[in-house]
Order: sequence, then C-alpha cells, then structure tokens
Amino acid sequence: MAYETERLVEWGDCDAAGIVFFPNFYRWIDGHYHRFTKACAFYDQRTLLADHGLLGTPLRDTGCTFHAPARFGDVLTIASKLTKLGTTSLSLTYVFTRNGTLVAKGMETRVMVREVDGVIAKAPIPDAVRSRLAPLVEAG
Amino acid sequence: MAYETERLVEWGDCDAAGIVFFPNFYRWIDGHYHRFTKACAFYDQRTLLADHGLLGTPLRDTGCTFHAPARFGDVLTIASKLTKLGTTSLSLTYVFTRNGTLVAKGMETRVMVREVDGVIAKAPIPDAVRSRLAPLVEAG
Amino acid sequence: MAYETERLVEWGDCDAAGIVFFPNFYRWIDGHYHRFTKACAFYDQRTLLADHGLLGTPLRDTGCTFHAPARFGDVLTIASKLTKLGTTSLSLTYVFTRNGTLVAKGMETRVMVREVDGVIAKAPIPDAVRSRLAPLVEAG
Amino acid sequence: MAYETERLVEWGDCDAAGIVFFPNFYRWIDGHYHRFTKACAFYDQRTLLADHGLLGTPLRDTGCTFHAPARFGDVLTIASKLTKLGTTSLSLTYVFTRNGTLVAKGMETRVMVREVDGVIAKAPIPDAVRSRLAPLVEAG
Repeated sequence: MAYETERLVEWGDCDAAGIVFFPNFYRWIDGHYHRFTKACAFYDQRTLLADHGLLGTPLRDTGCTFHAPARFGDVLTIASKLTKLGTTSLSLTYVFTRNGTLVAKGMETRVMVREVDGVIAKAPIPDAVRSRLAPLVEAG
Repeated sequence: MAYETERLVEWGDCDAAGIVFFPNFYRWIDGHYHRFTKACAFYDQRTLLADHGLLGTPLRDTGCTFHAPARFGDVLTIASKLTKLGTTSLSLTYVFTRNGTLVAKGMETRVMVREVDGVIAKAPIPDAVRSRLAPLVEAG
Repeated sequence: MAYETERLVEWGDCDAAGIVFFPNFYRWIDGHYHRFTKACAFYDQRTLLADHGLLGTPLRDTGCTFHAPARFGDVLTIASKLTKLGTTSLSLTYVFTRNGTLVAKGMETRVMVREVDGVIAKAPIPDAVRSRLAPLVEAG
Repeated sequence: MAYETERLVEWGDCDAAGIVFFPNFYRWIDGHYHRFTKACAFYDQRTLLADHGLLGTPLRDTGCTFHAPARFGDVLTIASKLTKLGTTSLSLTYVFTRNGTLVAKGMETRVMVREVDGVIAKAPIPDAVRSRLAPLVEAG
C-alpha cells in the first residue's frame, strides 16, 4: 500500500513564472523518504548511524517527470511505493497529485553506505532494517 | 561541442553526511541551462517573454545518476550537450566531473510554454530561437 | 495571542556540521508568515494580487539570533506576533522553540508593494486587509 | 579593505513576484563568508576541523535590510568587512550592489564551536587563525 504525505507549496518554492521550481520536487521526495522510513520501518538517518554505523542513504539514480504545474498555496499529495529491495540498495516511486490531478511522477534508487577512512562505500542493508522493509515491497 | 561551466560546492549545499544534498545538482543543471541559452543562443527567460510572449521553459522530464560524492570546497565542471530539438521541446545532457572524475550525469527535456487565460500550454520554439539552437544539436 | 505552526527539520535542511543551515530559518519565517495571513487575516499573495492589485509583501528588514542548534528530526514550534501595523508596512516577531527550549528569535518588517510600469513601489495596506490585521497587533 | 565577490541571480533564486526570495541573500552571505576566510585568511571549515578540531562557525546573530529588488540575470557585487574579532566570535558586514545601486545590507556574528560529547560549545578562535584575521579588522 502506498505511503502518503502532504506538502503545501510555499511562496519560496515557486519561480518567476509562478510555478514550482522543479528541484523542490526532489527536495520533497527526500523529505517524504525520511518520513516513510521513520513511519513504516522505524528507522532514520540517526538510527542508521547510531545502531548500524551507516553514514546514510545517498542517491544512485533519480528521475522525475512533470505533468501539470503546481503553484503557491497548492496542497500536493505524495504517494510512494517501495518497489525493490537489493543487497545494498532500495528503489521507490513517487506520485504527486493535487485533488486527484497528476502533477509529477518520480523514482529513485538509494544505496546504504559506510565511511571507511574517509572513503564512502556501499554497505549491505542491515538485517534489522531489511526485515522491516521486505514486507513493504510491491510492484511499482 | 560541450558547453562548460564551473560550480563551487558551498557549505550550505552539503547535508549532515558531508556530501552534496542531491536536489542541488538539479538546481545547478538549471543554472547551467540558463547560462547556456544566454551564452550560446543569445536568449534567456526575459527575452523569451519580452520578444516572444513565452512564459518560460519548464521541465517535462529530468533525471540524474550519481557516481562519486562531492563535498564542500570541490569545484565541479558541468558539461552540457543539446541532444534534441523538437517542435516545442529541447533535450540536454549534463556531465559533472571533479578533476576528471565522474561525479554525476543528468538529462532533461524542457518545453516552451505560453500562458493563455491562466492556463499554461506548450508553444512552438520561435524561429529566431530555433535557428540559433539547431546548429548546436549533437548526439548525446 | 501568538500564532503557532510546527516545522520538522528535514535532512536537507542541515549542513555538514549536522545542524540547520541558518538561511532555512528565514525560509521557515516566510512560510509561517503566509500561513499566518491566511489563517488569521484571510488573505494571501494570490488574493493581494487578485483583489487589490498588489504584487506582494517583500521584506524591508529581517533579523534572527540563534540560541541552540537544531538538528535533523527535530520538531520546531514557531510562534509569531504581529507587533506593528504601519501605513504600508507590518512588523512581526518569531520565536522558535524545541520542547520549550529557545532555538532562535527572528523579526521582520514587510512592505506591501504595487508594480507600476515595471517599477516596484510601496502601497498602502488595503482597508479590507488592515481591518483584519489591526485587532491582531500586540506588544513584541 | 572590503573583500568582494560577484553573484549572478539565477532563475530559481526568484519568487513568483519575479524578485529574489530573500533567504537567498543569507545563503549568498554564507557563501561569501567561506570565500573570504579561504581567500584572505587561508582557512575554511575543513581546515578548522582538521587543524583545530573545530566543528565550524555557526551564526549567533544575523540581519539584512533590503533597499532595491534584484531579479533574474542581475549580477550582484557583495562587499564584506570584518568589523569585530572577539575571543570566540567574529562579526562582518555585507553590502550588495548592482551597478553601484544599493540592493541590500547585511551583518552577522559567528562563533567558533567545538563538539564535546555531542554538545556544541563555543571555543576560542585559534591563534593561527586569529593572527591572520586581526589585520583585516576595520570599522563597519
């Protein structure tokens, strides 16, 4: 089942054409991702570091298509799905809608990483995290 | 031939893991795009509006893959190519490197738009703009 | 009485030292201001333009002091007061707390503006807006 | 003597009223500060940590007044002065101009900090840093 959050489009999110400056959609995807792991899998960047020595979950691949403009004051619904769980990576899709109208569709693949001697290297998803994420995987 | 700009990674561009917060790469892609149209095709968002009544060049499709982390103080070289020129759209690729090391690869498709009665609709690329862009198209 | 909103500190809001990159506090002040005018005085940037021909409410003066660091995952409470209502301007104060601990204190003075022939000039606060704001003024 | 940098106002820096969204001025102040310490005093956040164990230089006080709007494509000149050097803090002023026209005036006080057992506490400016900054202090 999709995990949903809402995002109010703020004044500073929009450009001089009056529509959302598109990098903000990626910022919102990131914000949604962190809420998702916290709400659905009970971990966040703090616990990854404190409990598992992982530096974080940087992006390997990202993408977003835009289907309708969003403007100041719009409330966007963001619905995500966890579509793949690899050895060190996880993939999600994101659908942005406004009152049922499609606004944007995004995807991302993240990798869990560890820092060793100043070098960032990918690391296996810890078992405790994997066991919580695995039941959430569904077709994109 | 690729058009190149440089970008210094600033303190506020990085996240708590000490690497660039990825939406900033899209912000830099956008910044590079506007420098490119100004430097190579002699137009920008202002002239599109003033000379052609176009509201701007919003994104239809965007993507970026990340290959090596970038950190505070790094100077990134951004090299773009104009890979496609459609009736209303144009596509570009972007390669970010740091001292020759690949950092990220991006792509985007933009659409020229007009606003009519509050509705944003795609519009043909004006001939004056097309004649300047056409010679710049090359294989991605 | 103070108007309050909450703001979750997101991953991308923090810098490489793990604390909020300070310009975000100003972004949050702006986000709070727009929620305040909407919730308490029933207008926003859209209605200012549509109903009163005003371009917006840009800043004349801003300031913020920082008293305790805020980090990823913190929930900040923002409490504002409207402290002054001038002919064309209004002033507010903002207090950021986390579980009762003072994090930051901000202030701003905004000016209502009109655009005439491409020039932005200050404009009197419309009577309809003033009558809603006046009862909200209180000592800072 | 003032230290100067230039900043091109980008498309994404402007809001729906077509002028710079004001928190970006603070982002530019921060960017300028880091260039200043690197260019004039030969240190940055990396060397503060590596050489002196300091976590960084967070803000204690900030402020900015706005005098003329800045728009997409404008090139702003930022001129800073180091106005005070305390035991643990330093203060600077910033003047933004466009072709000689005053756009904004900012100020800030920063504090050098150390992190001890997860708590951030102010720390004396290291002698090696102080000896480079001291000759740069001038009246605001």
